[in-house]
Amino acid sequence: MALSTAFTKLFGVRHPIALAPMGGSAGGALAAAVSRGGGLGLLGGAYGDRDWLARELPIVADSGQPWGVGFLSWAIDVGAVDHALEHDPGAVMLSFGDPSPFTERVRAAGAALIIQVTDLEEARQAVDLGADVIVAQGTESGGHGARLGRSTLPFVPVVVDLVAPVPVLAAGGIADGRGVAAALALGAAGALIGTRFQATAESLVDPSVAKAIVEGRGQDTERNRVLDIARGARWPSKYTARTLGHPYLDQWRDREAELAANPEARLAYQADVARGDIPALPVWAGEAVDLVTDLPPAADLVTALAAQADDALARAGRD
Amino acid sequence: MALSTAFTKLFGVRHPIALAPMGGSAGGALAAAVSRGGGLGLLGGAYGDRDWLARELPIVADSGQPWGVGFLSWAIDVGAVDHALEHDPGAVMLSFGDPSPFTERVRAAGAALIIQVTDLEEARQAVDLGADVIVAQGTESGGHGARLGRSTLPFVPVVVDLVAPVPVLAAGGIADGRGVAAALALGAAGALIGTRFQATAESLVDPSVAKAIVEGRGQDTERNRVLDIARGARWPSKYTARTLGHPYLDQWRDREAELAANPEARLAYQADVARGDIPALPVWAGEAVDLVTDLPPAADLVTALAAQADDALARAGRD
Repeated sequence: MALSTAFTKLFGVRHPIALAPMGGSAGGALAAAVSRGGGLGLLGGAYGDRDWLARELPIVADSGQPWGVGFLSWAIDVGAVDHALEHDPGAVMLSFGDPSPFTERVRAAGAALIIQVTDLEEARQAVDLGADVIVAQGTESGGHGARLGRSTLPFVPVVVDLVAPVPVLAAGGIADGRGVAAALALGAAGALIGTRFQATAESLVDPSVAKAIVEGRGQDTERNRVLDIARGARWPSKYTARTLGHPYLDQWRDREAELAANPEARLAYQADVARGDIPALPVWAGEAVDLVTDLPPAADLVTALAAQADDALARAGRD
Repeated sequence: MALSTAFTKLFGVRHPIALAPMGGSAGGALAAAVSRGGGLGLLGGAYGDRDWLARELPIVADSGQPWGVGFLSWAIDVGAVDHALEHDPGAVMLSFGDPSPFTERVRAAGAALIIQVTDLEEARQAVDLGADVIVAQGTESGGHGARLGRSTLPFVPVVVDLVAPVPVLAAGGIADGRGVAAALALGAAGALIGTRFQATAESLVDPSVAKAIVEGRGQDTERNRVLDIARGARWPSKYTARTLGHPYLDQWRDREAELAANPEARLAYQADVARGDIPALPVWAGEAVDLVTDLPPAADLVTALAAQADDALARAGRD
């Protein structure tokens, strides 16, 4: 039996599953494949790079499926949002930082407004800004999130109660159908999934990254700013990123201020990248990476996740 | 419809809910009330204090309900376990530290062996030791847990897969029926619940603690060793405790080594307690404390949690 929620109804999709708009890896082909599988594909618009958007937006926009695009609120200008809106997305998702400079133009264009939140204050603001969907992100998630983050399991029901009747998607720590089922049991209208979709045929990640995710363990992931500082990323200090292990992490763990004050270390990082001693980017991965063991086509994965979720709900408490 | 799992069948209880054996607060009356409500009451045997056990064990042992008792593996001697086994508990739960010195006598006495784990290595060991039930504890939980802990949502399904067919209880971040439902959706056979049961009529906590839990917010909880060090507790350094805010936490946060090397600070803590400026114990509370808003009788609470869980599963994906 298909899982029906306020989210599936809002977007006219078959399954309560959304692709996290992961910068770099969630390109047009992956977003289109997730939507083709019955979920909602969200393009990883990230910093709003115009060349990247010009290449990837048409791939998903021309797919004939529901789709959307996500941006980093702290990093973009309104031009990036306008550029995306020209392609008539069904949704624009805003994460990390103040979304208010962008919300009116999203609503005016008729796209659904999705706002990701990491605490209750942000959840209240998202309601005030007229969010159509609120993503409650837990600290289990791969990649960036709040330094003082909440865990998904206790965070989601509190957000659901606070923002009702606005539908909530649970994000962070979900990589199989059991996690999707748990999100629905918590009162969420669906799950926003990242790490699991990095390990798919359509993900834009380097094959070495997909391999690291398939082989990675949740216990080897940790939240840190070390790699953002070392690579010179402009992320505000209230955000850390959950990554797999890395030589610079071993070297600089718990010494972030010292690293930030050390330009030689950042030059050394660049030199190490140039020599090929370390990859250009960290491997962003969530705590649920244990559950990622293969590299399926993303559309098949969406179908499988939904079937597992349905099965998990049917079996729960029915032994 | 009653929720039936391997856990409810093993203990002959009506609901897939267990009381976390919280040292101090989970006394005989609370354990008996949880069992009377249809869950499994676990007495908080903690360090194995003989006087406390002599007072509290008969209260639950004579209740005519299924019951058990929990201990801290790092803190007890075999005498404490033997003392409890004389009262013929249905289960003995061992948490934190090496359970192996105690498991054979539990099994020989015919009690079910419950082992709590915080990582996959401990889960493997628990299987090897013949655990009848394994509790997978996430870092959201109130009170003590692993310093490098896992989050409940991604941790539970991995443990379920690793230890199958041994039944798993999810612990950490669960304080309402939606959380119980999520645990079952993840493949657990039930939920072990702590913080929520501290705020009940039968909990042994001081009324000020119950009030702090009812009023507390998840965002105000944090894991730390500061308060264990300040109060001179013997907890091994691999365990932190999640607590509500405290003046000593504000003063010593991120300076645990310095605090440990400062006997004057520990004497000052004792003096502050003696003067009544700070309470004798921290308020241990999990991240789901947002969901705790009243002080019901524990038996009524168990019934309500089970009904909410059943309802949450029935509604999930059925909008």
